[in-house]
Amino acid sequence: MKVNVETLSDLSIAKNAKMQPIRKISDELGIPEDAVEQYGHYKAKIDPTKIAVKTNLGKVVLVTAISPTAAGEGKSTVTVGLADAMKKIGQSVVVALREPSLGPVMGVKGGATGGGFAQVLPMEEINLHFNGDLHAITTANNALAAIIDNHIHQGNELQIDPRRIIWKRVLDMNDRALRHITIGLGGPTQGIPREDGFDITVASEIMAILCLAKDLSDLKERLAQIVIGYTYAKEPVTVRALGVEGALTLLLKEALKPNLVQTIEGTPALIHGGPFANIAHGCNSIIATKTAMNLADVVVTEAGFGADLGAEKFMHIKSRQGDLSPDAVVIVATIRALKMQGGKQKDLLKEEDVTALLKGTNNLEKHIDTIRAFGIEPVVALNKFFTDTTAELNALLSWCEERSIAIALTEVWEKGGAGGVELAKLVLNELEKPSNFAPLYSVSDTIEQKVRTIVQQVYGGKDVVFTDAAKKQIDQITAYGWDALPICMAKTQYSLSDQPKLLGRPTDFTITVREVIPKLGAGFLVCLTGDIMTMPGLPKKPAALNMDVSEDGSAIGLF
Amino acid sequence: MKVNVETLSDLSIAKNAKMQPIRKISDELGIPEDAVEQYGHYKAKIDPTKIAVKTNLGKVVLVTAISPTAAGEGKSTVTVGLADAMKKIGQSVVVALREPSLGPVMGVKGGATGGGFAQVLPMEEINLHFNGDLHAITTANNALAAIIDNHIHQGNELQIDPRRIIWKRVLDMNDRALRHITIGLGGPTQGIPREDGFDITVASEIMAILCLAKDLSDLKERLAQIVIGYTYAKEPVTVRALGVEGALTLLLKEALKPNLVQTIEGTPALIHGGPFANIAHGCNSIIATKTAMNLADVVVTEAGFGADLGAEKFMHIKSRQGDLSPDAVVIVATIRALKMQGGKQKDLLKEEDVTALLKGTNNLEKHIDTIRAFGIEPVVALNKFFTDTTAELNALLSWCEERSIAIALTEVWEKGGAGGVELAKLVLNELEKPSNFAPLYSVSDTIEQKVRTIVQQVYGGKDVVFTDAAKKQIDQITAYGWDALPICMAKTQYSLSDQPKLLGRPTDFTITVREVIPKLGAGFLVCLTGDIMTMPGLPKKPAALNMDVSEDGSAIGLF
Repeated sequence: MKVNVETLSDLSIAKNAKMQPIRKISDELGIPEDAVEQYGHYKAKIDPTKIAVKTNLGKVVLVTAISPTAAGEGKSTVTVGLADAMKKIGQSVVVALREPSLGPVMGVKGGATGGGFAQVLPMEEINLHFNGDLHAITTANNALAAIIDNHIHQGNELQIDPRRIIWKRVLDMNDRALRHITIGLGGPTQGIPREDGFDITVASEIMAILCLAKDLSDLKERLAQIVIGYTYAKEPVTVRALGVEGALTLLLKEALKPNLVQTIEGTPALIHGGPFANIAHGCNSIIATKTAMNLADVVVTEAGFGADLGAEKFMHIKSRQGDLSPDAVVIVATIRALKMQGGKQKDLLKEEDVTALLKGTNNLEKHIDTIRAFGIEPVVALNKFFTDTTAELNALLSWCEERSIAIALTEVWEKGGAGGVELAKLVLNELEKPSNFAPLYSVSDTIEQKVRTIVQQVYGGKDVVFTDAAKKQIDQITAYGWDALPICMAKTQYSLSDQPKLLGRPTDFTITVREVIPKLGAGFLVCLTGDIMTMPGLPKKPAALNMDVSEDGSAIGLF
Repeated sequence: MKVNVETLSDLSIAKNAKMQPIRKISDELGIPEDAVEQYGHYKAKIDPTKIAVKTNLGKVVLVTAISPTAAGEGKSTVTVGLADAMKKIGQSVVVALREPSLGPVMGVKGGATGGGFAQVLPMEEINLHFNGDLHAITTANNALAAIIDNHIHQGNELQIDPRRIIWKRVLDMNDRALRHITIGLGGPTQGIPREDGFDITVASEIMAILCLAKDLSDLKERLAQIVIGYTYAKEPVTVRALGVEGALTLLLKEALKPNLVQTIEGTPALIHGGPFANIAHGCNSIIATKTAMNLADVVVTEAGFGADLGAEKFMHIKSRQGDLSPDAVVIVATIRALKMQGGKQKDLLKEEDVTALLKGTNNLEKHIDTIRAFGIEPVVALNKFFTDTTAELNALLSWCEERSIAIALTEVWEKGGAGGVELAKLVLNELEKPSNFAPLYSVSDTIEQKVRTIVQQVYGGKDVVFTDAAKKQIDQITAYGWDALPICMAKTQYSLSDQPKLLGRPTDFTITVREVIPKLGAGFLVCLTGDIMTMPGLPKKPAALNMDVSEDGSAIGLF
């Protein structure tokens, strides 16, 4: 069958796919019956405490990408397709993905469940409410916010300074009007007036905590450690002081269980947790990854944005806290995106342009260098798009060959797992080699040293500058004894620098850290650079305008 | 086994109960396998479009109550216990309940899943996120709000007046600080500044719509009809004009399916929808009730607060829109609550006081008269509490006997279905009689006439007064042609009048309607009397402070 790749929608492909009952998928993985809680016919939650722990844990393949552009790289698509390809060549494999945020789905067309014939199913449910994890996080986050304002309203025993509350409310919605608000208006019975704002749910520290917690008791301990603000005497106020870590854990106990679904080709997929890759660490949950490592020999997972953001945080935050490390790394690149990195305009991307392509390879080159700096030899996945020309494809393949970089042309969008077999074989080859993985900094380095290491060795910049405000915060954090934590950089994903329009491989630049925010529950220090958006807005024509439900109850216009 | 009713908690009873797999419950009801979507082992969503329509629909027993007091009546407990008793005496029965709101659970101890040995299970999951229905409603409500503010921000093609937006955001949380807020602050890229506020999710018109919709296409049509505000030219702006009824329907399509669970005694329970009984109509969904009527011969359901609120709205709103009517009505009363109606202080309720009890019977008498006015002969359920004395119980039994009112002593909290057999038999007796049900007003009456009918015939008041503002709104509503809708009174539940402290059976009072709000999606006109709270606050010591999770993952401190 010839596929018309220009007209097929991801939703139509997903709808025509034949799913296996989820119990068949869980049985094939050897998951005991009492560990499986079905959510409908094709989704389940898995209780990780009921999965036997293996001696030889599965190996971890991390899929990352070049710096993202509007052209798209298809990182999730390649992640799913690679897992399907692994299955096709006889490997025992689980793909472990982040779960989508619902808010952006209402805004801009485009899901987080892969594309074409490399998708996870049921895509419409995964992209909408899924199994309620994000709703549980929203609820826990906002219960804490209500408890804080109620505490102040009811006498403020802890002497919380309303001007120094750093805990914001959240909604899983793109809603710019909630970024800056005033609350508690209307008189003495309506609370204490103060400035506030909403973030999108995936930016909540509770999302990061859920993704980094080892188990239920670790979740509770992390929740207790959250700093929600400061007293009038400038002492930190924690959730423990408010006494609601138990209630928040109760609200999150089901959300902590990974969700089992399947790819179009019936490969098992654990989809769980989806923290922002700018304000947070951008990886799926440690619990899901570990569960997958106990269920399969190969675990294919991904991290948000380019290797400078998601992969760096995977190496320095998730690996450390989860006691795991990637055994192989795949860097996804497309001809289109590399042409944009080389200066090609978005509306001219259909034109063949080998010059722009080769110019843009310097972005790919930097990400390769970065992964090598962690002691891992990456494999490049050239994710084919139907507008790519033979000359362009050959140019990139040669460029890699000349530099002894393993590269595979992947056609998983169009062909599913069959289009990723070459990539799978290259990855398996890397998995056979012993791991030389090592982080680039030690948590015992000073905050300044840790940030400098990231800027120089991961971004390729010259140096880092801290604003006076950031310096003061570093002094406070050090005084409180919170400095021995890993760094979570909040930086634009579009450039290796902190300037979104500086594409390719910029050099000689300086990164400015304007704020350092302790996230003690998550266990990292967020360093803000540039303008970081924690609540997106909707576009002029939101995707919601095209959505509908057919008479048989299935989705219309969802991608 | 002797039960110590003073020390047993509802949670401990629920935890010790042995549940059947939900598929066993659905099989026994004859629900086809493809209509059942399991949510874990003990909950399921039922697809009503896959249930065969019966010729002889099940009969509907509506459980209502005297005016509520702080002493509690146990209406949900009696509803569940009556269904268990029906099952015990061989009836084919389904209990159809409203689903709890999560926000209040964090505030004040007390659930909405019955009590003692008359509970629905799994109570902790039903009381927390359940199957995500309220989260879906929150999301749809707030997606609409974001679309409205985005529309204005992106050029305001519809010329929506930001001062005349009546669509509020919602959270399923008790959060007084969100009652009155200002949004869109921070400059030109952050939206349009305006006054706003959050309601609790159950007060959303979308909750009322979900409960009144017949099917998916009716849901969509009702969503399209919502009036979100007015233009600068004071013309109404609907969801249809914004073009997002399809997206909202998509967000709600799973929430529209009723949830199947079971009572402690394995009686099937459909729990679905839970609109406020003050600002909305306070009944479970029409779809769930109708589904139950197709699955069983007897359907036991309830309506919020006393017969003046929930039951009146069941008769005038739910019955009309759902083309159904109650075949029998149970009025729940307790000795304690009647003593409070008779003037007894809450902290002295343990004392025997037949005089206060008999004085308080006038409240019960009014609710009996009201149900009789609708053409139905009610049955009184005297819900026994362990502090009731023999003299008190006998006094109420005699009072009813003298007036030829059917009354049964029920002990379902302590004994489950066995404690409600007498009540069940009295109800079955009523079900054998032909129905003389008739509403008290016609929708074609004027708005003033309809409200006057409710005030005089249901509340027992002298007359109704409309403020100038309300009169102006009535003129506008009539001018727009929206007047031929039923009335949804928003009145305190504590008194038959609009003054919460006027207990018993007040007479000669006047009700003041201060605002008339069209809810075109729900299909009713809300008349506000007194101060109606649409966003509760948390108490000084929220219930959340006592909540926790045990090591095996089960809830602690949840009731």
